[in-house]
Amino acid sequence: MALIATIETGLYRIPLGITLSDSTHGEMTAFELITCRVRDADGAEGIGYTYTVGRNGGAVADVLKREIPDLVAGREADDTEAIWHRVWWGLHYGGRGGPVVLALSALDIALWDLKAQRAELPLFRLLGGFDARVPCYAGGIDLDLSVDALLQQTDDNLAKGFRAIKMKVGRPDLGADVARVRAMRKHLGDGFPLMADANMKWTVEEAIRAARALQPFDLTWLEEPTIPDDVAGHARILSAGGVPIAAGENLRSLWDFKAYIAAGAVSYPEPDVTNCGGVTSFMKIARLAEAFNLPVTSHGAHDITVHMLAACPNRSFLEAHGFGLDNYIEHPLVLEDGLALAATRPGHGINFDWEGLAGLTA
Amino acid sequence: MALIATIETGLYRIPLGITLSDSTHGEMTAFELITCRVRDADGAEGIGYTYTVGRNGGAVADVLKREIPDLVAGREADDTEAIWHRVWWGLHYGGRGGPVVLALSALDIALWDLKAQRAELPLFRLLGGFDARVPCYAGGIDLDLSVDALLQQTDDNLAKGFRAIKMKVGRPDLGADVARVRAMRKHLGDGFPLMADANMKWTVEEAIRAARALQPFDLTWLEEPTIPDDVAGHARILSAGGVPIAAGENLRSLWDFKAYIAAGAVSYPEPDVTNCGGVTSFMKIARLAEAFNLPVTSHGAHDITVHMLAACPNRSFLEAHGFGLDNYIEHPLVLEDGLALAATRPGHGINFDWEGLAGLTA
Repeated sequence: MALIATIETGLYRIPLGITLSDSTHGEMTAFELITCRVRDADGAEGIGYTYTVGRNGGAVADVLKREIPDLVAGREADDTEAIWHRVWWGLHYGGRGGPVVLALSALDIALWDLKAQRAELPLFRLLGGFDARVPCYAGGIDLDLSVDALLQQTDDNLAKGFRAIKMKVGRPDLGADVARVRAMRKHLGDGFPLMADANMKWTVEEAIRAARALQPFDLTWLEEPTIPDDVAGHARILSAGGVPIAAGENLRSLWDFKAYIAAGAVSYPEPDVTNCGGVTSFMKIARLAEAFNLPVTSHGAHDITVHMLAACPNRSFLEAHGFGLDNYIEHPLVLEDGLALAATRPGHGINFDWEGLAGLTA
Repeated sequence: MALIATIETGLYRIPLGITLSDSTHGEMTAFELITCRVRDADGAEGIGYTYTVGRNGGAVADVLKREIPDLVAGREADDTEAIWHRVWWGLHYGGRGGPVVLALSALDIALWDLKAQRAELPLFRLLGGFDARVPCYAGGIDLDLSVDALLQQTDDNLAKGFRAIKMKVGRPDLGADVARVRAMRKHLGDGFPLMADANMKWTVEEAIRAARALQPFDLTWLEEPTIPDDVAGHARILSAGGVPIAAGENLRSLWDFKAYIAAGAVSYPEPDVTNCGGVTSFMKIARLAEAFNLPVTSHGAHDITVHMLAACPNRSFLEAHGFGLDNYIEHPLVLEDGLALAATRPGHGINFDWEGLAGLTA
């Protein structure tokens, strides 16, 4: 136990090696990384981060610099529930979502890293320790790739050790989506876990039509078929489309997930630890899913999230993202036979190449 | 019609004459005002604003300065739907709530002001023109006042011309709430419109107990009995408590309101034009309420909002806030026999004392 002494925030713009695209965000040429380093009175340091697909990072950093230190200075760093509630309610008016929750997520990750380091435990053991080996899939951002390029990307992912793959759908023409998924299924063979992500592209009826057209290809799940605001629509797509539904990267709280789960609107809840409220919220969402007999998957930040899923008996696949953060991170995620391995170093075990990042300050 | 030329953002910290308090936000000594001035290629200017109760204003201003100009520069200023969707989706990842929606609201208000000015119409006529005279209530922020001070504040509000009043509830002891509401009802007489606002203080069962205890005092509504994230809880409070429920100042989109309205969780939807997504969203929420045979009330920014309610046949009371912005505004709201009058000048008719504000730059 020790009091919070300082909170240091960084805002960086990380260029992408190749331009990524999906059905909603269009072309992405860079993403923003916002870091949060919490030091306690003994000099120990925990590290958290969040990211965006290119916008709103300035607002996230502003909340971390302008509001959060004043709210949490001098508090006991191990009191993660008390600090979470202090920040959530202290920033509620004009908060309760958006950049405020991303900032809170980065802070909360740093506090859990610090707590685990001080306990000399890898984070997944502090959280519950189920299995350090977590099934993992490669999340392709590949809507605009030709079928040939898509299969080449897939071969690259297989060579990296992935044994499950997600592709994008949501082309203007459903026939193109079907052809691409058919080609992937044929290439990968029956039984290979294959997911498809529509990034909120469709209306409810379009999504049902697409789900039915994709049924023959045995998708593990269809992700974000429509806007996150339509809980009843998701429930209808799930029941009428006949394909399991994943959703959650655009939900921002335990309560958002509760609305989906209680309404039967999601098969695979998919929180992102960097935008759902941090480790504190992610674990509550995972346990809520367990109570409803649902697997839990993830979005983004695989290096941190592997610890959360390694503490969950109901863990499904970890998403491994292609955002190129690995170039600035010590000890990138290790894959073995398609399984991601939670590091056994104390904390989440992630540190950044701060010198390399310094040149990317935004 | 003319293209958007420039967007200018201001961030100010406005001290409150007296410290305000409610059951959730504690003591408030200042609020933040974030202004947005949009000039078109012809040199015409529209003015929008949003506010916070003291935090997150920096993040709102950052979104308005860093993200929004790049997203909307050169677009046709009258295309408010196109611009709204461009900003909502352009800032969706890490947005979809919080400071991003407050920033969008300020922009949207400015664009509607500009559109109405160019059309040489007062905003309420551009929006639909129902009745320029809108019932109005004084929103007291008075949880910590003694009964004597509460009645004195009430007499001051009556002297200002108010013919409806809202008070705070949510004291640690329900008995104190009941005594205060009883004193107010006795002071105001039977039939005088009296509302009570709990600012999310209670659990669902506490709220039902409070609503039942307050039934004898004929409240027009009980506001925000519990956290905004619990739609089912609001529905239960409404049906079991036996008092009409108002809610909405902490909802951030048309879809949030749809969830409440479709679930029978609210009697008086209460959007705030400065945080629900601007005029564009406020009017959709008001029309949705009309379709469900519900009155619509409001939160904050009475000077702008009077125009929205003056365009709605289902308008209920306008809230008049005590945030002291009137000191920096030309033509503050005019009251007549308890009715607020929508200004007949083109646009919303509001301008700021920019020189006075300059000294309060944050």
